[in-house]
Amino acid sequence: MKTPLIYITLNENAQYYECGFSCDNALILRIDDERYFFTDARYSLEAKESTFPHTQVIESSDFLQSAQEVLKKAQVKELIFNPQELSLALYQSLEARCEAISCSLKPKANFHQYLRIIKTQDEIDKIAKSQKLNKKAFKHFGNALQKMLKKSPNEKQLHYQAMGFLSHFGDYELSFEPIVGINANAAKPHALPSPKCLLHKNDVLLFDAGIKYQRYCSDMTRTASIRGDINFSKKQHFKDPFVQKIYDIVLKAQEETIQKARTGMSGKEIDAIARGVIEKSGYGEYFVHSTGHGVGLDIHELPRISRLSEDIIEDNMVFSIEPGIYLPQKFGIRIEDLVVMKNGRPEVL
Amino acid sequence: MKTPLIYITLNENAQYYECGFSCDNALILRIDDERYFFTDARYSLEAKESTFPHTQVIESSDFLQSAQEVLKKAQVKELIFNPQELSLALYQSLEARCEAISCSLKPKANFHQYLRIIKTQDEIDKIAKSQKLNKKAFKHFGNALQKMLKKSPNEKQLHYQAMGFLSHFGDYELSFEPIVGINANAAKPHALPSPKCLLHKNDVLLFDAGIKYQRYCSDMTRTASIRGDINFSKKQHFKDPFVQKIYDIVLKAQEETIQKARTGMSGKEIDAIARGVIEKSGYGEYFVHSTGHGVGLDIHELPRISRLSEDIIEDNMVFSIEPGIYLPQKFGIRIEDLVVMKNGRPEVL
Repeated sequence: MKTPLIYITLNENAQYYECGFSCDNALILRIDDERYFFTDARYSLEAKESTFPHTQVIESSDFLQSAQEVLKKAQVKELIFNPQELSLALYQSLEARCEAISCSLKPKANFHQYLRIIKTQDEIDKIAKSQKLNKKAFKHFGNALQKMLKKSPNEKQLHYQAMGFLSHFGDYELSFEPIVGINANAAKPHALPSPKCLLHKNDVLLFDAGIKYQRYCSDMTRTASIRGDINFSKKQHFKDPFVQKIYDIVLKAQEETIQKARTGMSGKEIDAIARGVIEKSGYGEYFVHSTGHGVGLDIHELPRISRLSEDIIEDNMVFSIEPGIYLPQKFGIRIEDLVVMKNGRPEVL
Repeated sequence: MKTPLIYITLNENAQYYECGFSCDNALILRIDDERYFFTDARYSLEAKESTFPHTQVIESSDFLQSAQEVLKKAQVKELIFNPQELSLALYQSLEARCEAISCSLKPKANFHQYLRIIKTQDEIDKIAKSQKLNKKAFKHFGNALQKMLKKSPNEKQLHYQAMGFLSHFGDYELSFEPIVGINANAAKPHALPSPKCLLHKNDVLLFDAGIKYQRYCSDMTRTASIRGDINFSKKQHFKDPFVQKIYDIVLKAQEETIQKARTGMSGKEIDAIARGVIEKSGYGEYFVHSTGHGVGLDIHELPRISRLSEDIIEDNMVFSIEPGIYLPQKFGIRIEDLVVMKNGRPEVL
């Protein structure tokens, strides 16, 4: 898709990408090389201090009216927007404003994520650094688990401990609420941590977490065996041979996908690699989500690595590969890495 | 507004209010006393375990199609939705689905927040408990400041420390990212914590924070003088007489509003009490936001206490009263409490 150069969006990550600053009440308008940042008086001071030089900050209590003035002056005839982003109410107000100045509105779903789908080396470096810091937190959390185990911590306590390591005690924000699931709770791919669910020896612990480094997200999942030397490496030895069997299927699915994914494939072809391994082993119905998703400023962005995705994979795209098997009331296994496509193949970040 | 009994929404707090459970990918449909909770396979297990008995959980990969089937079966002829909530894309899909079964769509802005605008005693008790826990955190944070001051902590470190106290070290979620602003950073009403901004003796420290107790939000702001016995009470003694003067104006505005607000007033009449005090003192242009907002499951909900609000205040509504004065490049003062209207008058929670 060609870069759309005249568009309007409220999205915070788009604000940041275009203007170097974002807040929860702003609208940006891009007209070729000019960016207009409309925000209210609570944020305008910080916006003026923090935005890129090509950005004009306009304090306003009616963003659409202010945007209309700019559009009129620049004689814009067609304005791109994301129909999945704008609410019906906002769209209708924008439509009325645009009609009055004979500017037509052009819907393009996820246009700004498409614009960011191929990462610059600088972005890849930031995601890599983010994942490096994330892995460090996984390591520290693993070590702490060994010590905490005697006290049978519950999921909520584990969650809080994990947040400390992930944020490096306040230095970094998280890219999402970490998921800490023990046994049957790990069978819910997005379980909430429960104070009633305690960690014991020989349990299965699923840990899915990520942080932000200079706003770029990381994301990793490991499923650990709570015995011997507890850690979040991919090599895990479970006491129960059935758990081990399921773990090995998921590991095989994940590693084969990393091995066989290539640029030029569609998202659904890559999804089919992981899904194929799991289906062949007879657990297809328990792999209840897609194989992966793009990662960048958003924790979930393009490309989609799912059953239906037509996104064509290219060099310098970054996405997760995270197959899983979830056996209700029993346990769940997921293994996730981030990869960047380089020279046609995935490199694990 | 009469309770709308046939509506559709994606909002997580509406999900929770109606069904006792929520997740980030679900749609709910209420038809009189029946609630339908459509979600995907990642969440359906937990949803089935956690929702109220009157809720039917329907696992679906196409919520709108599943909703259409239910609407058709129930012969629904008119469906309420919030045009500020649904994206244009979702609205258009819903419209097509509804047209096919001769069901018309009726926009009602914020209908679910209106439905929750008057709190039950159980809700008020939860908000009160939330604010009580929040105040405890303010107290502990104040004590910690006294000790931390020698090391000149920066805003980011203060922010992290505050998060520990606010969450009671993992027991509670926060209702929003706490705001910790020193001097000129406090002049930005929603400042991001900076690692470059250090706390020293005689500084002005603005602290705005809240937590969630059983999903109900609290919210409080204090501006503290960093000298003597540091605390977050409303009685503050600043070294600089000009800071003290501004502080006293804001305090007067806040206290007069609590004293004079009555049921039957509109949101804008209450806003005018606080704004009047600040305008009379000559600082009206530096009070750059509204006087308050409703608090409940959402941290910002109805009623609005703003310059334009026509919301009529009634008993058992809960909202914040939080005037402020922000002097760019200098400092900012805000003082905020939550009140519940009882017997026609505000009671501070």
